Amino acid sequence: MTTFLGTGAMGTALAATLLDAGLPAVVWNRDPRRAQRLAGRGALVADTVEKAVAGDGPVIVCLFDHRSVHDVLDPVVGALAGRTVINLTTTTPAESRELAGWAAGHGIAYLDGAILAVPDMIGGPGSVIFYSGSAAVFAGHRAVLDRWGESTFFGADAGLAPVYDMAMLTGMYTMIAGFLHGAAMLAAEGVPAAEFARWQAPFLAAMTGSLAGYAAVVDAGDYAGEGQSLRFTDAALAALLRASTGQGVSTEVLQPVHDLVRRQIAAGHGNLDTARIFEELRSRPRS
Amino acid sequence: MTTFLGTGAMGTALAATLLDAGLPAVVWNRDPRRAQRLAGRGALVADTVEKAVAGDGPVIVCLFDHRSVHDVLDPVVGALAGRTVINLTTTTPAESRELAGWAAGHGIAYLDGAILAVPDMIGGPGSVIFYSGSAAVFAGHRAVLDRWGESTFFGADAGLAPVYDMAMLTGMYTMIAGFLHGAAMLAAEGVPAAEFARWQAPFLAAMTGSLAGYAAVVDAGDYAGEGQSLRFTDAALAALLRASTGQGVSTEVLQPVHDLVRRQIAAGHGNLDTARIFEELRSRPRS
Ligand SMILES: NC(=O)c1ccc[n+]([C@@H]2O[C@H](COP(=O)([O-])OP(=O)(O)OC[C@H]3O[C@@H](n4cnc5c(N)ncnc54)[C@H](OP(=O)(O)O)[C@@H]3O)[C@@H](O)[C@H]2O)c1
Ligand SMILES: NC(=O)c1ccc[n+]([C@@H]2O[C@H](COP(=O)([O-])OP(=O)(O)OC[C@H]3O[C@@H](n4cnc5c(N)ncnc54)[C@H](OP(=O)(O)O)[C@@H]3O)[C@@H](O)[C@H]2O)c1
Repeated sequence: MTTFLGTGAMGTALAATLLDAGLPAVVWNRDPRRAQRLAGRGALVADTVEKAVAGDGPVIVCLFDHRSVHDVLDPVVGALAGRTVINLTTTTPAESRELAGWAAGHGIAYLDGAILAVPDMIGGPGSVIFYSGSAAVFAGHRAVLDRWGESTFFGADAGLAPVYDMAMLTGMYTMIAGFLHGAAMLAAEGVPAAEFARWQAPFLAAMTGSLAGYAAVVDAGDYAGEGQSLRFTDAALAALLRASTGQGVSTEVLQPVHDLVRRQIAAGHGNLDTARIFEELRSRPRS
Repeated sequence: MTTFLGTGAMGTALAATLLDAGLPAVVWNRDPRRAQRLAGRGALVADTVEKAVAGDGPVIVCLFDHRSVHDVLDPVVGALAGRTVINLTTTTPAESRELAGWAAGHGIAYLDGAILAVPDMIGGPGSVIFYSGSAAVFAGHRAVLDRWGESTFFGADAGLAPVYDMAMLTGMYTMIAGFLHGAAMLAAEGVPAAEFARWQAPFLAAMTGSLAGYAAVVDAGDYAGEGQSLRFTDAALAALLRASTGQGVSTEVLQPVHDLVRRQIAAGHGNLDTARIFEELRSRPRS
């Protein structure tokens, strides 16, 4: 029997996927009304964490944050020795490593998960979950994990799944902000955002094909190749910024990209590949 | 016979596409050596702009910028009356409108083009060119335009093609910067950028599917729906920024997105859809 600690929006989706497949689950939630809703789908509802973890199955944790995980698990740590904890709460890499160390210290097998999906997507196409930590837990519970989405294991360092997750989300949020900037430019011309999205979505999707090329340059550390030069990008971004300002659109999303390019040019790299802003980002010139 | 003014990297690709298809072309370039290279592909090479525009075919302009277009066309304006100019030089919307007005004042039929491709892509798959200005020129020369790439006409306002182009590129540059930020996060863990690109590219391509949803919310102007709230995004971005700082990665690309979200929350919109940062961008709170 699988234990679920936390039946918020995401924990409910995870538990419901197993229950709807006819698998048994015991659920607990701080506010018992949110756990109770799963009773109709076949869940056993525990009114204390102690009772929820009394069995011997894996303990799936999906709470608000790192602190709430400790709030819930610390009091029952004695019951968890020799057991398996799979933590799908969003945590930073450092927090995941802290939890892995804490689990190791108490004889708990620990797998960290990072969910790249919204609750509605769990159990359906497009749901992706990254894992890292115990390879044995990943392999042993793979059948369950695969019910929630496409499961990928990144290695024994529990911090890897969150760092992949966060790196992925950084790209997503900047892309969305860039799209909204573009939509604001077109809105200034009376063009609806939906009309823009019709063009922007396939264009960006196609442009993701260029990321492997940027990556190859970064990994080689050789920016002297044929790619678009920082000087070219400087001129292109300057034109975009000028046009945005002319249209009354805030440049705050794009300006830092231009600043990165200009600092690299000032450092004498104008003829090198635009991918070189990677060096500027990782050297943390400002924090 | 088609005239090409400017045979830099892009002008050369445009002219070569026609020449390679057996169509006649006369080419001119400020530095004559760059025009001369096309002679071997069948081009007539003119040593003055006057001679290059002496025929009656369309005049394709692909120069460095708006100013260079005037530098080249102004002296021969008398010969251009009643003729067709298709300008593929990158210009801002305001510059394209200025050129369209200038052309109208001199009896020149004007079509503005914005190329969403690099020279290597011209004439091949994935090459996209946006046009606006004279619908008659677009329709009349469609067969030639379609040889360079997928041609789309956005309307009589010559500024529309550049504004679409710039809006598209804003999304692209922010996406690339976000990808490099993510790559820097993983580099801090010893993971190569190529490994990250393998995950980031399909994820972002899939996420472009969400842009139409953001657009629908923006167009409706109703941010009270089911989408991800500004408060949720605030917490997510705060975690990404914290993790980035912890890894020694500069937050300068992502920080402004967080600032936009926080200002919207401070204005009392925390429960509304994250798409609402569109309102913050278009109101230009800073320039
Ligand atoms: N929703 C998404 O789209 C999404 C996507 C990816 C990852 N995630 C991650 O999944 C996790 C859960 O998110 P969610 O969407 O399910 O959020 P949610 O609906 O707000 O649920 C939060 C859960 O945490 C519990 N909780 C909070 N503080 C607690 C504490 N101190 N002690 C005990 N329980 C506590 C809540 O209990 P009460 O019901 O009693 O308040 C609730 O069960 C988060 O880490 C989130 O980042 C969510
Ligand atoms: N390359 C791309 O990936 C790309 C993509 C989309 C759009 N575009 C646009 O296409 C246009 C041309 O770009 P390109 O890549 O071909 O650049 P390029 O190779 O640098 O060529 C620039 C051209 O402009 C000419 N020129 C510059 N200033 C001039 C002046 N004052 N008078 C006369 N001629 C002048 C140059 O002549 P000389 O040879 O004598 O210097 C050359 O023919 C630009 O507006 C660019 O933004 C390029």
